[in-house]
Amino acid sequence: MRLKSVLFVLGKILFAIAAIMLLPAACALIYGESPVPFLAPAGLALVFGFLLTLNPKKEDRSLFAKDGFICVGFAWILVSLVGALPFMFNPTGLSFADAFFEAVSGFTTTGSSIFSDVEVLPKSILLWRSLTQWVGGMGVLVFLLALMPKSDNKQSRYMHLMRAEVPGPSVDKIVPKLADTARVMYGMYIALTLVEVIFLLFGEMNLFEAITHSLSTASTGGFGIKNNSLASYSAYSQYVVTIFMLIFGINFNVFYLILLGQFAKAFKNDELKAYLIIVALSTAIIGANIFINLYSANTAEYSFRHAFFQVVSIMTTSGFSSIDFNVWPSLSHVLLVLLMFCGACAGSTSGGIKVSRIMLLAKNAKREIKYISQPKAVMSVKMNGKSVDNEIIRGATSFIIMYGMLFAVSALLITAVDGVDPITSFTSVATTINNVGPGLGEAGPAENFGFYSAFSKFVLCFNMLAGRLELFPILILLSPTAYKKQA
Amino acid sequence: MRLKSVLFVLGKILFAIAAIMLLPAACALIYGESPVPFLAPAGLALVFGFLLTLNPKKEDRSLFAKDGFICVGFAWILVSLVGALPFMFNPTGLSFADAFFEAVSGFTTTGSSIFSDVEVLPKSILLWRSLTQWVGGMGVLVFLLALMPKSDNKQSRYMHLMRAEVPGPSVDKIVPKLADTARVMYGMYIALTLVEVIFLLFGEMNLFEAITHSLSTASTGGFGIKNNSLASYSAYSQYVVTIFMLIFGINFNVFYLILLGQFAKAFKNDELKAYLIIVALSTAIIGANIFINLYSANTAEYSFRHAFFQVVSIMTTSGFSSIDFNVWPSLSHVLLVLLMFCGACAGSTSGGIKVSRIMLLAKNAKREIKYISQPKAVMSVKMNGKSVDNEIIRGATSFIIMYGMLFAVSALLITAVDGVDPITSFTSVATTINNVGPGLGEAGPAENFGFYSAFSKFVLCFNMLAGRLELFPILILLSPTAYKKQA
Repeated sequence: MRLKSVLFVLGKILFAIAAIMLLPAACALIYGESPVPFLAPAGLALVFGFLLTLNPKKEDRSLFAKDGFICVGFAWILVSLVGALPFMFNPTGLSFADAFFEAVSGFTTTGSSIFSDVEVLPKSILLWRSLTQWVGGMGVLVFLLALMPKSDNKQSRYMHLMRAEVPGPSVDKIVPKLADTARVMYGMYIALTLVEVIFLLFGEMNLFEAITHSLSTASTGGFGIKNNSLASYSAYSQYVVTIFMLIFGINFNVFYLILLGQFAKAFKNDELKAYLIIVALSTAIIGANIFINLYSANTAEYSFRHAFFQVVSIMTTSGFSSIDFNVWPSLSHVLLVLLMFCGACAGSTSGGIKVSRIMLLAKNAKREIKYISQPKAVMSVKMNGKSVDNEIIRGATSFIIMYGMLFAVSALLITAVDGVDPITSFTSVATTINNVGPGLGEAGPAENFGFYSAFSKFVLCFNMLAGRLELFPILILLSPTAYKKQA
Repeated sequence: MRLKSVLFVLGKILFAIAAIMLLPAACALIYGESPVPFLAPAGLALVFGFLLTLNPKKEDRSLFAKDGFICVGFAWILVSLVGALPFMFNPTGLSFADAFFEAVSGFTTTGSSIFSDVEVLPKSILLWRSLTQWVGGMGVLVFLLALMPKSDNKQSRYMHLMRAEVPGPSVDKIVPKLADTARVMYGMYIALTLVEVIFLLFGEMNLFEAITHSLSTASTGGFGIKNNSLASYSAYSQYVVTIFMLIFGINFNVFYLILLGQFAKAFKNDELKAYLIIVALSTAIIGANIFINLYSANTAEYSFRHAFFQVVSIMTTSGFSSIDFNVWPSLSHVLLVLLMFCGACAGSTSGGIKVSRIMLLAKNAKREIKYISQPKAVMSVKMNGKSVDNEIIRGATSFIIMYGMLFAVSALLITAVDGVDPITSFTSVATTINNVGPGLGEAGPAENFGFYSAFSKFVLCFNMLAGRLELFPILILLSPTAYKKQA
């Protein structure tokens, strides 16, 4: 590990987080709340950031692939530690475990909460929760890259950072310069978020509600400002949020191609097609399931709206709820749990395994069966009409296996310590590792994660970070090879 | 596909199954029951077997790898169809779906039953249930190979059959001639089964009970002759069955090495060590969990015995029960479900993923993390001190992914059709795909699978066959490439 280079990047991260904290501080002043819970951590971050960036040697700043992963892993832990402070310094004063859980849940865009009543929280804290999700959605290091001066011509050395942070089986620079890629992505992210704010303002939401919900939708995070999430909002607002969750579940490269006017190329995307088909089919199945079993007294629109909302919310791993789906029939539960694992498109702000990775694995499985008949044939797996590198397939298979192992170990640990029932245990792990938010049972959409012990909270935090960073940057921190000095 | 060769082997299989059916027919005569339910299907099998083996051209008999898989897939379906007939012809007359489920559950050594009351069944039917398990445990085609004349010097052409049928990531011929390997394996299998019969006779069991239970233990199948499985038997009998389940979960190569006196080589086996460690740890955890939560009024021996019995029964995928573990605490449930997936050693009669495959995947995952630091390093995965071929690792990863996909699709299908709760649905699929037997919830150890619709029963049959044959021989039957004519 190139310690100095890693520390330098971590220092920069602290500057960025301090800057972001000025927003909730301003919000606190506007609403007559104390800005201290934000200004104090921001000050701390500035001091430590200054100390870490006191690095004289310029040439030390380059990063190897391994350093990129380690850097991203540590950066997210650091950001979560700093981000937890406002929850502790606030009059609602949380314990460290609770505050850290809430911060990790925010930055990783999970949206599981330990608060049983969010409506009593100060507005600045509610904004901070949604803001952590928004920053975490596109990525803390991508944010840093977007801020990088245009003159720095050694940007390509930071490609590893972006690779480690952006979700999906592979990352392409969409424009030649890395910092430009980061800026374009953040630009589209900001623009789409603003469009949602405007649409929501046409409904019954005030500016504060529209902003916080848009920040949490854009990041597919799911932190709301009401105890029943979006259940008390109008059908109009629920549809707006559904459509925007659906949009933010799409690969950002698609939007960039649309921006360039390359519509044909944008829509020649196998993952996008599969994603929309899965959403449509699942909405039809769950809509019919709940209409027949529960809401037949209500209109078909009612069943359609909640099915559509919940399918998109779970599949994009947002985790907003328009209703308490804990009471839905079994088929809907099983389908929603499977969608939790599926996730939306690579290169979006959603969590989970990702549609493209599942497509790759399914195509690879088909190829393996064909290999039995023709053991010597050369067969390639194709996506979007192009052959996929075997290295990427190997990465996807390793990913899924480590994912399964982490799932099994975590479920066992939290059941061992807290003795929760298997449904609560398995869905708590599923919802955190996939960055969804609500689970089923005791961790259902009308419940919260406050009842877990501090130990289980840390296990679930580990899952959220591992899920958001797609395992490797977090798992490598557990490996002794990470800490070997490199020339 | 070489149709004629495949049909020839299927014909031979029919002869074998007809021969095996003479045993329950004899049993029927001894106990004054009708032998017709067995003699009629045996006669049918003989007629069709004769027709299929009317193959004039000798040179057509060789088999390619693909044909081996197809042959095994069809053979198991055929055997299950014939094996279902006694359940239909019997006075207790089952529907076709139920009879087929029971036969598949037998041959695949799953042990899930559709009978709510097995104690009213004729003795010949009880023997047939245990016998299907015993034959399925070691393998229908391995049985055929064991019967092959010593003079046939083209046996090596049938290696593909054995590869497709014996569980585990790889198969070695333990002696140079294939038919000899099959004979040695069946020899050890028969000998160990007889030793268990003798041990059980020292307890309270009569000869019929000792034989049926030994057949079901040897195959790690789990069909009992009492409604509460082994719960009403003495502690002595329960310990004997536990020890023999543990033994039959070990790779048969280990026994062969012991037979040859090569003890050092036999015990230098990483999988065996891991298997015994997992059993010991899980027994300790579950024993403590149930002692503290449920049986502290009882003796520690009571908790230990049931924990040991249930851990070994589930991990070897036998599925016998010494108690209704549906009432055990959550930690025990979660651990038992994970053990269901784990399974015991490769090359044993147990189902599940297998300890060695999980070890391979874990070691491979560790290697992938190291690759981040040293992308160009050459690192091999080692088992028993030797490097493992990358081909075998790729096979194990593809296996696990298809396994996961089959699991998800099956759970969705049976919930969609029968609307069972998620715990029942997920554990029903887990217990059938892993060839265990009992699930949790409505499919718990004190329940049966009779309540499922015919559709769900066929889905679960597919899972049992796919699980027993480790996916490929069954999945290839769904692939159009299987039916292309080959020169």
